[in-house]
Amino acid sequence: MTASGLPMRLPVEGLPPRVTIYEVGPRDGLQNESAVVPVEVKAEFIDRLADAGLTTLEATSFVHPKWVPQLADAADLLDRLDRRAGVDYPVLVPNERGLDRALQSGVEHVAIFASATETFAGKNLNRTLDEQFAMFEPVVTRALAEGLRVRGYVSMAFGDPWEGPVDPEQVAGVGRRLVEMGCWQLSLGDTIGTGTAGHVDAVVDACVAGGVPVAALAVHFHDTYGQALANTLAALRRGVTTVDASAGGLGGCPYAESATGNLATEDLVWMLDGLGVEHGADLHKLVDTSVWMAAQLGRPSPSRVVRALAG
Amino acid sequence: MTASGLPMRLPVEGLPPRVTIYEVGPRDGLQNESAVVPVEVKAEFIDRLADAGLTTLEATSFVHPKWVPQLADAADLLDRLDRRAGVDYPVLVPNERGLDRALQSGVEHVAIFASATETFAGKNLNRTLDEQFAMFEPVVTRALAEGLRVRGYVSMAFGDPWEGPVDPEQVAGVGRRLVEMGCWQLSLGDTIGTGTAGHVDAVVDACVAGGVPVAALAVHFHDTYGQALANTLAALRRGVTTVDASAGGLGGCPYAESATGNLATEDLVWMLDGLGVEHGADLHKLVDTSVWMAAQLGRPSPSRVVRALAG
Repeated sequence: MTASGLPMRLPVEGLPPRVTIYEVGPRDGLQNESAVVPVEVKAEFIDRLADAGLTTLEATSFVHPKWVPQLADAADLLDRLDRRAGVDYPVLVPNERGLDRALQSGVEHVAIFASATETFAGKNLNRTLDEQFAMFEPVVTRALAEGLRVRGYVSMAFGDPWEGPVDPEQVAGVGRRLVEMGCWQLSLGDTIGTGTAGHVDAVVDACVAGGVPVAALAVHFHDTYGQALANTLAALRRGVTTVDASAGGLGGCPYAESATGNLATEDLVWMLDGLGVEHGADLHKLVDTSVWMAAQLGRPSPSRVVRALAG
Repeated sequence: MTASGLPMRLPVEGLPPRVTIYEVGPRDGLQNESAVVPVEVKAEFIDRLADAGLTTLEATSFVHPKWVPQLADAADLLDRLDRRAGVDYPVLVPNERGLDRALQSGVEHVAIFASATETFAGKNLNRTLDEQFAMFEPVVTRALAEGLRVRGYVSMAFGDPWEGPVDPEQVAGVGRRLVEMGCWQLSLGDTIGTGTAGHVDAVVDACVAGGVPVAALAVHFHDTYGQALANTLAALRRGVTTVDASAGGLGGCPYAESATGNLATEDLVWMLDGLGVEHGADLHKLVDTSVWMAAQLGRPSPSRVVRALAG
């Protein structure tokens, strides 16, 4: 650690000068918490993350409360937020009913959650791969008509627990259909965390060859096999400029307390700071927020940087 | 995960076709364990790692038992090992007395532990940076005369907890002196884990510019800030072909149970398997060994791959 608790800044050639951190902790991080987190805590979490300089904060999901009781407070949460200029608060919408609710809350940016594989489309959406597009199309069309931006998650974009490795061409095909439908950005999700750096190259290259500009790509890595940050480095080398991450590494791991699922925002920021890639966030404010949130949840953060700097 | 529990193999251009994993778990991983691990367990650990295909296993240290009681059984341990052809069992020697003991045990490869910084040389060795070379010189000279190979660890090669970031030129200078003294290999240690990928490039480049061939460089990364695997990827891109790692991620973290210090061998192997970089080890045998060792130590492995595949 340096005197300032920041890494030495030594840029690598060929990386983007600036990236956008797409923060998923409040939604993706909290949605699997079994104990319901009070809405005041969620609002403070998001406001503190904005204070720390994050400019894109996926706040919640308008999923039916029956499926995710944790996020039943979506409308209330959005009402409580200190929404500020220059900060984007996208929300996940699973369907048209969710979009209705999101519109009532005055959101400007929604996300849909598609699958790259037939099997996961069946298990998660009870649809075939083709049917998922039919399901999402009216959501996207109406969102666009209402002036919203729509992000498309492409889940299982690397490996699938039932199908194994996923053909990058298939991922590109799913992505292209979402872009043609009107998604302004794709988030390529390594949902089970099995991808490695060359796999990242292959998926990004397939998407770009398939007509999706690299500027429209985001990456969403899970650290289940420890690969998230190495994969992020590979994606940056390919020109990707949006990286999903979860403050404190919240979310994504059912199998062991404090084991990690989502890439921790702080671990990402440490790398970006070292590489001299601008992102606008303040590492120490993020760490303070994650330490506070860990106390709310009653267990330590799995982020290495949070543990090291809070220790 | 694929059906086989292995990542999809998708090589990245510009990486070495093969690397040597220098396994440090039995020595570096165990030396900080407060409860003494029975010598039979240590021997089984090492034999199982060799069975898993690792070919370089740093077995122990001939440090004075007063300083590291955990390794007081060094000679006994080496006697018990099923030392096999083609497997290298280096040991750490802190001084001439340690070298004497190592020679009595019939070792063929020793390692010395130098500091890249003035402050750590003072704190760890009670020497100035110059004096450490005077201390190591007779050890190396005699080891070479006895036909041994000598590895030189360069600790604090990225950041130092007292001095902050370390000038790569200084690291290169220390490394060059160790090579001139007769070390066949340098292990560049990010002892406090603060380095990032560009910093790796800078240190490797400075060493090479200073006259140390890249083939003589190993990297030793700690995951304290989550950077170890991304840094390894950077080192591989620079042509480094020896990577230190610790089975199960053992060792190196005083501040939180199961938080990680050393790069876990399994997490490294997952990446190398995905990249198509040969290493000779069997991932599932490594995981089985680390699961067994975790049971011996009474706590879960911090390796993400071990947790994922053992879950």
